[in-house]
Amino acid sequence: MKRQLGVGMLTSSNKNKELFFGIDGGGSKCKAIIMNKDNEILGTGISGPGNPLHGFDQATNSITESAKLALEDAGLSELELSDIVAGVGLAGVNLPVLFDQMAAWQHPFKAMHLATDLLIACLGAHDGSDGAVMISGTGSCGFSCVDEQQTIVGAHGFPHGDKGSGAWFGLQGVKQVLLSLDGIVPTTLMSDVLLKKLNCKDDTDLVEAVASQKATYYAQQANLVFDAAEQGDKVALAIVDEGAEYINSIARTLLTKNPPRISMIGGLTPRLKPWLADDIKAKLEEPISPPEVGSVLFARQQQAKQSVQQSA
Amino acid sequence: MKRQLGVGMLTSSNKNKELFFGIDGGGSKCKAIIMNKDNEILGTGISGPGNPLHGFDQATNSITESAKLALEDAGLSELELSDIVAGVGLAGVNLPVLFDQMAAWQHPFKAMHLATDLLIACLGAHDGSDGAVMISGTGSCGFSCVDEQQTIVGAHGFPHGDKGSGAWFGLQGVKQVLLSLDGIVPTTLMSDVLLKKLNCKDDTDLVEAVASQKATYYAQQANLVFDAAEQGDKVALAIVDEGAEYINSIARTLLTKNPPRISMIGGLTPRLKPWLADDIKAKLEEPISPPEVGSVLFARQQQAKQSVQQSA
Repeated sequence: MKRQLGVGMLTSSNKNKELFFGIDGGGSKCKAIIMNKDNEILGTGISGPGNPLHGFDQATNSITESAKLALEDAGLSELELSDIVAGVGLAGVNLPVLFDQMAAWQHPFKAMHLATDLLIACLGAHDGSDGAVMISGTGSCGFSCVDEQQTIVGAHGFPHGDKGSGAWFGLQGVKQVLLSLDGIVPTTLMSDVLLKKLNCKDDTDLVEAVASQKATYYAQQANLVFDAAEQGDKVALAIVDEGAEYINSIARTLLTKNPPRISMIGGLTPRLKPWLADDIKAKLEEPISPPEVGSVLFARQQQAKQSVQQSA
Repeated sequence: MKRQLGVGMLTSSNKNKELFFGIDGGGSKCKAIIMNKDNEILGTGISGPGNPLHGFDQATNSITESAKLALEDAGLSELELSDIVAGVGLAGVNLPVLFDQMAAWQHPFKAMHLATDLLIACLGAHDGSDGAVMISGTGSCGFSCVDEQQTIVGAHGFPHGDKGSGAWFGLQGVKQVLLSLDGIVPTTLMSDVLLKKLNCKDDTDLVEAVASQKATYYAQQANLVFDAAEQGDKVALAIVDEGAEYINSIARTLLTKNPPRISMIGGLTPRLKPWLADDIKAKLEEPISPPEVGSVLFARQQQAKQSVQQSA
């Protein structure tokens, strides 16, 4: 689609200026939306992993693919990726080497504004304004953006970090069950539930089942730790209390930055939030929009800054 | 070398009956010795990983190679592997699937007697008699053999088990330093030492350094945790106390089996032993021989049993 084709196209070109891609590229999938100036999502596309930690080619292919799918889903197939500005939030680009690599990408968009997955999650949760988020999904971390000062707490990875994440809860559960099978700690109902779920009859089976497993596998065992804790299982309760206390610590660290709003997001939120300290729970507000919307908000802010710089 | 070649060879054949290979196949190397009836080690050979967890071909090649090197080292190149009985202790063969695979190997020895690395370590430590061992090296576990009853405690692997091992101490150190860099726990001298050792200036560097590292990497960081604890570092002290308490628990579990002797072995022993409970330390006796000698003792016991069965 070329812009010099006529009056109709001029209108389309003007319209394009009001359209933005919002992209959220994570370790398991890449999600793209296309949004108009009235904050309506016109189309959505989902593709493979968009985290450059899994490789530059995989990430850039997923980003391009998800954007094309969103364009198609919106019924805007007459437009090209090069007609539209994209906000792109990616896991992994908090590492400078990966940020530089992705920023140097000969991307297919009209312009690309690159941010961390943490910044777009925070912008989404607080509708583009300052704020803080605690994130607990497969991994865990805290992030705040206040007066253009960004703070990251955690986000260290598994198994050396990511305390209070799904992977961490699952790993603690497996550890305690292995100890109980050796008689080092008491056996509780969590032991039976875990062995049953993983089709194991003893510790040899369990060791075979969990050998070399990754964070995502352990995250799948997190729910049963919470189930057991909710039934009063003392070993599970101790795990849940320790994980919740870490998320409390993240919150307290973030609150020293005086964010106007603070939210908790990520897949483990419904299970973990009830276990947080009362003073923290009292401060939590519902996230307003998901991270991909945060990518659009980020791209709009960056475009607005550029306009100001150009007119200055 | 064929046995029907003459009188000299008959003598050699008789001598061969008194020679045994003792093989200790672990995750990083395979060690073979050749020993005579007077318990003299005539030669030693070391090759690559002998743990079948790393693959059947790798393990069997390493075992064969180490035995050939031992034969050469002993100046017995006129003999073949098929002239000599081997005791083979391997990590991993506590898993039935790996034991069966290795037992079915068309091995090159006159006979092969297969045992776990735990059994040969225990036989070595107690000169072929009943006893118990706590092992802390890269991994950790406990083992006893009393009245032909074998008990295993731990041996679960990293990161879900192996508490009190080198890998566990190193991982705990890294975890605590990452938390301290976020201000979640106090910074102690261990933080500076670890960052310096790994050439890191901040948590981003440290996260990059440790991402996807294996047990052996973490085990290399264990000594600095002990160094810090010995200088009174409170965070390091808490780690060392927790790890030592697990080894105490292993010892107490093993002592319920009434082993005549109990020893601590493995690369971390000199660092960890001083931190064990006094009542445990008081019971520990020095290991008599290393695991590869235990393999010889095991093979001799098995051959003796077979003779009894054959003459019965």
